[in-house]
Amino acid sequence: MDPDLAALDEYLADAGYDGYLVDAPGSDATQRYLSGFDAPDPFVTLYTPDSTAVLVSALEYGRAKTESQADDVSRLADYDYRSLAAKHGTHEAKARVVEAWLADRGVDAVATPERFPLGSADHLRERGIAVEPETADVVTEIRARKTPTEIEWIRATQRANEAAMAAANDLLTAATVQRAAAVDDGESAASPEDEVLVHDGEILTSERVKREIEATLLRNGCALDETIVACGAAAADPHDRGSGPLRPDEPIIVDIFPRSKTTRYHADMTRTFVKGEPTETIRQWFELTQAAMDAAFDVLEPGATGRAVHDAVCDVYEDAGWPTLRSDSTTGTGFIHSTGHGVGLEIHELPRLSPDGGELRPGQVVTVEPGLYDPAVGGMRLEDLVVVTEDGYENLTDYPFELTV
Amino acid sequence: MDPDLAALDEYLADAGYDGYLVDAPGSDATQRYLSGFDAPDPFVTLYTPDSTAVLVSALEYGRAKTESQADDVSRLADYDYRSLAAKHGTHEAKARVVEAWLADRGVDAVATPERFPLGSADHLRERGIAVEPETADVVTEIRARKTPTEIEWIRATQRANEAAMAAANDLLTAATVQRAAAVDDGESAASPEDEVLVHDGEILTSERVKREIEATLLRNGCALDETIVACGAAAADPHDRGSGPLRPDEPIIVDIFPRSKTTRYHADMTRTFVKGEPTETIRQWFELTQAAMDAAFDVLEPGATGRAVHDAVCDVYEDAGWPTLRSDSTTGTGFIHSTGHGVGLEIHELPRLSPDGGELRPGQVVTVEPGLYDPAVGGMRLEDLVVVTEDGYENLTDYPFELTV
Repeated sequence: MDPDLAALDEYLADAGYDGYLVDAPGSDATQRYLSGFDAPDPFVTLYTPDSTAVLVSALEYGRAKTESQADDVSRLADYDYRSLAAKHGTHEAKARVVEAWLADRGVDAVATPERFPLGSADHLRERGIAVEPETADVVTEIRARKTPTEIEWIRATQRANEAAMAAANDLLTAATVQRAAAVDDGESAASPEDEVLVHDGEILTSERVKREIEATLLRNGCALDETIVACGAAAADPHDRGSGPLRPDEPIIVDIFPRSKTTRYHADMTRTFVKGEPTETIRQWFELTQAAMDAAFDVLEPGATGRAVHDAVCDVYEDAGWPTLRSDSTTGTGFIHSTGHGVGLEIHELPRLSPDGGELRPGQVVTVEPGLYDPAVGGMRLEDLVVVTEDGYENLTDYPFELTV
Repeated sequence: MDPDLAALDEYLADAGYDGYLVDAPGSDATQRYLSGFDAPDPFVTLYTPDSTAVLVSALEYGRAKTESQADDVSRLADYDYRSLAAKHGTHEAKARVVEAWLADRGVDAVATPERFPLGSADHLRERGIAVEPETADVVTEIRARKTPTEIEWIRATQRANEAAMAAANDLLTAATVQRAAAVDDGESAASPEDEVLVHDGEILTSERVKREIEATLLRNGCALDETIVACGAAAADPHDRGSGPLRPDEPIIVDIFPRSKTTRYHADMTRTFVKGEPTETIRQWFELTQAAMDAAFDVLEPGATGRAVHDAVCDVYEDAGWPTLRSDSTTGTGFIHSTGHGVGLEIHELPRLSPDGGELRPGQVVTVEPGLYDPAVGGMRLEDLVVVTEDGYENLTDYPFELTV
């Protein structure tokens, strides 16, 4: 992958730190990025401009030597951890081991991620080691600019995501509309007189569509913790995951954000579908949201700020008479989230396409996801994933915008 | 779920803290336990004996009000976050909002989890709030003792796990043994003359068995980040996930640790299989490991220490002439991990069945997983999940021990 860590080296030199210390499990993005190692329990990584060292349990030692990017692998047992734990307890023992391990490497001042564990930091500070969280986003800014390899990994995850979206789309397309009484066994949340989507003789639910999405992702080497398939009023809450019977003539938001099980890089995409006949209002929302997305793309290029991209989207919605968080910071209807976020080892990372979004740089991968929400109508959101290039952007998403299914 | 938090109340009162502060995403076990809320990005929870308050982004506000256990839900926007972020940057703005939110609740001294984010803590301390990580494991000890509801959730996850183990077992049973040359397309890691397992006309790999396990878990409402299907030399490293063709006459370790997608509670189970004819050595390992498990169960009851259970397992292996980490802390062969760990919202949590394992209490759910490892032979591990009861333990696992498939 070979990222450019020159900005970190410079930061450490300027601020007088010997290295950058991470104490986190392999699921932590910065841990994974710097160590290249994926272990379920927290382990310690020391990055210096000359070397990457990891300190792991005996259990992970063999794997760390072959799988991590570290050129220096130690285990707790090398520092007499067991007898220290018997004498001082596990927390204090771990700190003493880290202290000795740092001393062996001539390190007594480290920068850490903003979310470095407080307990470890306090222990090390008590033992005379300078430990300062870096709040300048040095490492997260480096992580935000993807190498060509990382961009290919994200593109591959988005390919799997497109297959999952197609599977959801196909289920909705194949569904019919019936009264719940005709198919319901009395256990669903639908009233007998309600019209619902029906597939294979059963009421089609959010849960059923999510299972199809997940099974498709799995076949394509990806996983996800959650996905959103939200219909009607649920869709009016941008982070409601959705549940229960899907209904005709109402917008159904499908938002999928998987990660590759191999590379751990994420992708993200949203489409909104209506089975049956969308109201005129929903049609207008759809067109307005496409216009908002186009407005964002018109601005998106290196040197533009994330704030400017967000402002372009707010302009479209506000010009059409909708409130946004820019015009009313407590509104519950209208455009009530930011325009986008970086995507990589984390599903939400830098840069921000929001009021505090800074200058965009080539290699940054961001979502563009305008949306409208009103509990009386439902929700509408459209989202593509793009990478900022030297002279604009490239869309990493290949999926059509079709409202009705 | 209604856990008994009296020990936390007592700790806060004794140490003079107003409350317990958590800053973590919903995937963090303590965050989930105290807030009952699952959001992908970090949010803040303040537990006091009188109230549970959460502070979330605008995006999560609606869901937090309906889904969290909190009786007091605020959003960043209530504290003018946007303009603070514009003036001071996001880190400082977040700290100022938390400071004001704590002040509104009369709180100026908090205990936190050991892994509370250092950056947030330093910001709050600079603003005069006492922030101390609790290293007495107060909350993790509370979490270790499960309520009847939590035990049922873990049992349900183990039911799904048994279905997944059966699916893997079935694949291995249905496989035939052939020379790789007869089926290989030249892309696998097997040499043409090697004997390999074959299923449906293709070489049966670790990856294929893992896909079957994962698909089965998915159908049963569970997910997993990783699973172990390790054959031969790979199985000699307890945390090697395994890859490539599976071979006859060698032990294949299948270790599955899923979590429920609904409750987030985990389960854990390991079996070791041999396709074909196990060597006499492997048979002895199997019997010895069953004897080690029995020895652990003989000791396991409330009042016994995790250390005593671990010692019982070490005794069996050492008496048979094997090294253990107890007899040689740097050995790479023999019994080279601890006997077990707690399981709950985290896959590894308290209590420990290890040299530093304390007194066991009713309601604690632990794995019992003795194993033997030697790169020249492979690995052997057997693992059940049990709950400590008032007068012994109850095995939550219902899966046979059959070596040959």
